[in-house]
Amino acid sequence: MKTIRYKCWIEEEGVKFYGPGPNELLRRIEKEGSLSKAAAQMNMSYKKAWDLVQRLNLHSKEPLVLLKKGGEHGGGAEVTSYGMKFMKAYEKLEQQMRKLVDQQNQLLKL
Amino acid sequence: MKTIRYKCWIEEEGVKFYGPGPNELLRRIEKEGSLSKAAAQMNMSYKKAWDLVQRLNLHSKEPLVLLKKGGEHGGGAEVTSYGMKFMKAYEKLEQQMRKLVDQQNQLLKL
Repeated sequence: MKTIRYKCWIEEEGVKFYGPGPNELLRRIEKEGSLSKAAAQMNMSYKKAWDLVQRLNLHSKEPLVLLKKGGEHGGGAEVTSYGMKFMKAYEKLEQQMRKLVDQQNQLLKL
Repeated sequence: MKTIRYKCWIEEEGVKFYGPGPNELLRRIEKEGSLSKAAAQMNMSYKKAWDLVQRLNLHSKEPLVLLKKGGEHGGGAEVTSYGMKFMKAYEKLEQQMRKLVDQQNQLLKL
């Protein structure tokens, strides 16, 4: 059976900035309130997730995630209201792509 | 500057079947009437292009490309009317994605 697949992401000067992976991390941070839990759920090292969050914050107009200081891997993490807005806008784009692909599935019937 | 990027392709049982690359090859075959010219324009070996055409034809309801026999690398190639229909449907999907992405560029203004 054939399926139409699609992907969308944001680049800055040719370098990936945001896409399905970062969006999933933000979603999980929002749910868990913890970067280490979010990372673990994605089989991502804490270090990798931490680096990703730094990079996201650095390349955004406002930080997307707030990391609160605490013990080791501690503290907790929070998606900022700006981050929430960004996540929602990205997910809207993804949903609309999904809709478009569903509408265009006559391509698969050819 | 940030840009939204996207990609769409067709898979069959999890294996890539059709996407930007095959579509470009078909476009060039249609224009040049030759598989070797089309392949060369894409910096693709004749062998790789030939294999790709075989795979496309094998996994379609009808062949997309007709290879005519002739001398070495000869003969010429032709996109079938079914292939034309398929190409157009795929390009329509791509265009609509482009349109959607252009409409959603408020994501980049965030």
